[in-house]
Amino acid sequence: MTKNIQKNIKNMNTMNIAVPSATPVTLADIQSPQDIKQLTVAELTAIAAEIRQFLVRNIAKTGGHLASNLGVVELTLALHKVFDTPTDKIIWDVGHQSYVHKILTGRQQDFKRLRKLDGLSGFPKSRESAHDAFDTGHSSTAISAALGFCTARDISNQNHHVAAIVGDGSMTGGLVYEALNNAGRSGTNLLVVLNDNQMSIAENVGAISRHLNDIRTTPIYRDVKKDVHKILQAVPLGKKIDKTIEKIKDAVKYTVVPGILFEELGFQYFGPIDGHDIKLLLKTLQKLQKIKGPVLLHVVTKKGKGYKLAEKAPDTFHGVDAFSVKSGRTLNSHNKPLATYTDIFGDTIVKLAQKEPKLVAITAAMPGGTGLDKFRQTFPDRLFDVGIAESHAVTFAAGMAKCGVIPIVSIYSSFLQRAYDQILHDVCVQNLHVIFAVDRAGIVGADGETHQGLFDISYLSHMPNMTVIAPKNRLEFQEMLRFAAFSHKAPIAIRYPKGTASEILPDYAAPLTYGEPEIILKGENIAVVSVGTMMDTAYNAVQNLIQSGYNPSLYNARFINGYKSTKYLHDYSFVFILEDSVKSGGYGEKLSAAATNEYFMCLNDQNGQNSQNGYNKPKNERPPQFHTLAFPDKFIEQGTRAELFKRYELDEEGVTKRILNLIGLSTN
Amino acid sequence: MTKNIQKNIKNMNTMNIAVPSATPVTLADIQSPQDIKQLTVAELTAIAAEIRQFLVRNIAKTGGHLASNLGVVELTLALHKVFDTPTDKIIWDVGHQSYVHKILTGRQQDFKRLRKLDGLSGFPKSRESAHDAFDTGHSSTAISAALGFCTARDISNQNHHVAAIVGDGSMTGGLVYEALNNAGRSGTNLLVVLNDNQMSIAENVGAISRHLNDIRTTPIYRDVKKDVHKILQAVPLGKKIDKTIEKIKDAVKYTVVPGILFEELGFQYFGPIDGHDIKLLLKTLQKLQKIKGPVLLHVVTKKGKGYKLAEKAPDTFHGVDAFSVKSGRTLNSHNKPLATYTDIFGDTIVKLAQKEPKLVAITAAMPGGTGLDKFRQTFPDRLFDVGIAESHAVTFAAGMAKCGVIPIVSIYSSFLQRAYDQILHDVCVQNLHVIFAVDRAGIVGADGETHQGLFDISYLSHMPNMTVIAPKNRLEFQEMLRFAAFSHKAPIAIRYPKGTASEILPDYAAPLTYGEPEIILKGENIAVVSVGTMMDTAYNAVQNLIQSGYNPSLYNARFINGYKSTKYLHDYSFVFILEDSVKSGGYGEKLSAAATNEYFMCLNDQNGQNSQNGYNKPKNERPPQFHTLAFPDKFIEQGTRAELFKRYELDEEGVTKRILNLIGLSTN
Repeated sequence: MTKNIQKNIKNMNTMNIAVPSATPVTLADIQSPQDIKQLTVAELTAIAAEIRQFLVRNIAKTGGHLASNLGVVELTLALHKVFDTPTDKIIWDVGHQSYVHKILTGRQQDFKRLRKLDGLSGFPKSRESAHDAFDTGHSSTAISAALGFCTARDISNQNHHVAAIVGDGSMTGGLVYEALNNAGRSGTNLLVVLNDNQMSIAENVGAISRHLNDIRTTPIYRDVKKDVHKILQAVPLGKKIDKTIEKIKDAVKYTVVPGILFEELGFQYFGPIDGHDIKLLLKTLQKLQKIKGPVLLHVVTKKGKGYKLAEKAPDTFHGVDAFSVKSGRTLNSHNKPLATYTDIFGDTIVKLAQKEPKLVAITAAMPGGTGLDKFRQTFPDRLFDVGIAESHAVTFAAGMAKCGVIPIVSIYSSFLQRAYDQILHDVCVQNLHVIFAVDRAGIVGADGETHQGLFDISYLSHMPNMTVIAPKNRLEFQEMLRFAAFSHKAPIAIRYPKGTASEILPDYAAPLTYGEPEIILKGENIAVVSVGTMMDTAYNAVQNLIQSGYNPSLYNARFINGYKSTKYLHDYSFVFILEDSVKSGGYGEKLSAAATNEYFMCLNDQNGQNSQNGYNKPKNERPPQFHTLAFPDKFIEQGTRAELFKRYELDEEGVTKRILNLIGLSTN
Repeated sequence: MTKNIQKNIKNMNTMNIAVPSATPVTLADIQSPQDIKQLTVAELTAIAAEIRQFLVRNIAKTGGHLASNLGVVELTLALHKVFDTPTDKIIWDVGHQSYVHKILTGRQQDFKRLRKLDGLSGFPKSRESAHDAFDTGHSSTAISAALGFCTARDISNQNHHVAAIVGDGSMTGGLVYEALNNAGRSGTNLLVVLNDNQMSIAENVGAISRHLNDIRTTPIYRDVKKDVHKILQAVPLGKKIDKTIEKIKDAVKYTVVPGILFEELGFQYFGPIDGHDIKLLLKTLQKLQKIKGPVLLHVVTKKGKGYKLAEKAPDTFHGVDAFSVKSGRTLNSHNKPLATYTDIFGDTIVKLAQKEPKLVAITAAMPGGTGLDKFRQTFPDRLFDVGIAESHAVTFAAGMAKCGVIPIVSIYSSFLQRAYDQILHDVCVQNLHVIFAVDRAGIVGADGETHQGLFDISYLSHMPNMTVIAPKNRLEFQEMLRFAAFSHKAPIAIRYPKGTASEILPDYAAPLTYGEPEIILKGENIAVVSVGTMMDTAYNAVQNLIQSGYNPSLYNARFINGYKSTKYLHDYSFVFILEDSVKSGGYGEKLSAAATNEYFMCLNDQNGQNSQNGYNKPKNERPPQFHTLAFPDKFIEQGTRAELFKRYELDEEGVTKRILNLIGLSTN
């Protein structure tokens, strides 16, 4: 649309006359939601087709979330035609389905750098656009936030609209229920759009999913009177009343009150309607705008809609790397991919479960992502998918552990933090043998701030009774899983990163001893202590130090907490700790505080007064100086693992340089 | 019941003959659940009356949870008559209503030391009795744990019963919904008893509470056919169908499907029944034992039942100190009680809210406990009680803050941990101005392990963008609330303890400067750094050190994180940090790691090469030795604050002794 035409349309708009545009409108003309306000249903339909092409073409190059965005094209167009953002507020739950919204709000050009370092985020970010009302990333937060928006509006006597768009997968999260319960009683004007594509990432589980399915498959409204009559006629009068109830209720409930669950929570329920019918969407949204109080619109969409390959395999196309549009196959995948930590986890726990019939696995809606597919195939009765419900997953595991079952709870680092209280209160207080497989620990990459696994050390390692460990390579990972399953019968978390499992130092495989690090190289004056996956970098940096004429020691931390003694570090002048975590509350902070304190306790005791404590006199007049090389205490942006390790000087070059610099400072 | 009679009854029992006991059974005869198996309804009724006397008489002396326990006397008797613990499992949600269960399971004698140091816990503890299947303390965990028990039973091919007893207040917690959703689809045999006393601690809020009320007040079952017919007849055929729906649904839904919300979540719903009718309870529980799949029994009880004063004011008698049975008044309360931190909080935020119309307050079902009553009276439209839903409270606050409203979220330390992810992900990522009023930080006393506020420093202070502060006295607390509301427009948490607000050092009121401690006393060689409420002890200990000939400095930390420089500590030989927190992840660990590292950075820079960084050359050849005096890294048991500070050598005597000892070690 040229500027003149735009202007003309805007002028027309003030006269409330719908004008067909002079030339066909194309997606490139849409630079703000204002540009779709005057479009006809036919034009919107054409734009929808263009958006789908745009999505497939771009995501095929950059990777990203495809299937969910293909599913919400018409819904997003309808929302932006009916609502006036940024005055009206649209809050996208989880947020990876906000691409169409980004396309319509002036960010088409930025899709070239989608999910890249310093590029367009794959999630709503208010720093990118005023149209992004609230930043999301984790599931099930949108209704709570939207209720906050409504409340702020109401007490400020404003009257704009607030809509939360929530997928059916998110409906298994307890936060949604807490928010519905609060909103349903509040009476505030709030629209919740339930985008029901019959999936979360994997197939949905739980009763709420069945409830939605029942709604979808029950004929509604028009036959209500006839149906109720027929059923009532069919019941002989003399029969026991609870039999009558049983028969009536199943047939009646959805015809009388579709969406009764939401109605009971205080929402007016509308739907289900076809989420790809633009005309119906527009009509319905316009009508609902006028209804007072909390309203839930149930929209049924098809994940992957319009791209045949994604329609057929929506889970495969949920989040993708760059792929061939024609074949759907991931590009550059002609090499057999190397085994990831996730793969090793999946294979190993199947073996452990073969030995130990009491071992079970729990996932929160991510059996594939966490590597539990093989376990599910091998032990279908011992795999429990609880839905997007991390808190419940943990307390459920605690209940099992209390009965002698050994649950492995496999949840990504940034999602496990949703169960902080349950880990502390339900597992650790009772010192239960629950194993936490903390996948995606450290940098995860393109998902950015909300998904980086940089906090698990800080939130887990201070819990009493909890042991946190991290493997340097695939072999040690297997050994740690065995240790957690069979040797250490108390709460234990194993953290491991996204990506290829390291093959470094295969010959270093000393048996795990509780609380003790593994020594890789014994030198003097300088020690490097590496946490888990940092070993590749640590080892290379140590080689560089040797090249520079130093003689450093190298340790593999293994135990991030629970260490009994730090005396092995007392006689170094420098200790460098490498960890892929924020600094605050991390291993470096813990180890340096403990080791420095223990140094002084030994020093104080040098005359042997308290030699019964087993203190050794330190050699040096000062404690070692500790320097932690970790991520800074801020939220770390998106980018590849390699890019971010480089940016924060945690790659081989950065680490070597920083260590040499710190040593150099002191020897100057 | 004498032993002989008991024995006879047991013999009879094997013949399945109910035998009236020879002499009247009294409560003292009941030493295990086996002792009630043969009792008649009349005998159980008599025992119920005795239990009420026992509860009132004992709790009047020791304090404890009264009203909720008076409400579940008949229910607990019926459960123990029908189920065979410890083979069958009873899991008490929250758990403060487990006193009757404890009385019936051999712990009558222990009630003298209820909630006292090393005495009987006020919550289920499996270490106390095999009849306590699972330890609880926080709300809404029981169904998740019970589902774990059921699953463990099912995969082990056992067939005992599992029952979770959940109050209606707990039903607002999202964890309950996650568990119902999972259990409802599982098909496992699980009994959930919904103990509906129409209250949580305060009056219930939210749609689920209205749902339960609707069930209670709707005539059920028997009139169903008549009602449906009547309504259908009344609808003229030509009328618009959605009007018809509207009329039908409200009248029909509870008559057709009472408890429809639970039915939709996959549970078979039964009730509501009178929870004080032993005969009905027994009959119903026996019947439900035979039903397969997940079942919910809705029982209506009266909080405080049988003790008139508690019936009238169940919230006052929820948790009580020792009181007069006759008057209901708290003993030893003739002195006007001193203002607590909670009181100061309540008064101060009313004043702040008078100045700032955008300031609002949020509570998770505890307006009274958190001191928000006065705020509610003054600004009823600006107080939001979201129910027992801490996660939602925080994301709701984030939504408001995003719109420029200033929310104060007032939640106890041990409950706020339930919102870890929401604080980090929804507040801190967007750097939103949300104020966390963290009441009950540190030792809370009689509630024990599950309620101590010893973790908030560890779980909050590592979050990027979050500032954690703590006041030394009431005046500083007021100043900090002002600072949080008006000066620091980012996430901030103020932690303060249970009990009387300190009046210490009223003349020390230097303006708050971000990240800087307050200096109370400037000496040399030795520094004591005190966190918040530890100042009373720190000040007295410092006076003792002065008496012993030392010349210590004394600092008030104020900022637990966010400090910009630690150089003020570099020239001390000893730094003692006092905090009421666990050590791991605490302030001592953070400060000592940071200060020691900064000491070395300054030392390395002594030749001034990097003087642009503003480093000063440290005086001493070694960094100061840091010693943190805090609670050890374990779960701290129940006891009064005074008892626990003494036991862990954190009272004046303990702190003085430890400091002198540590100084002495080094100077020997």
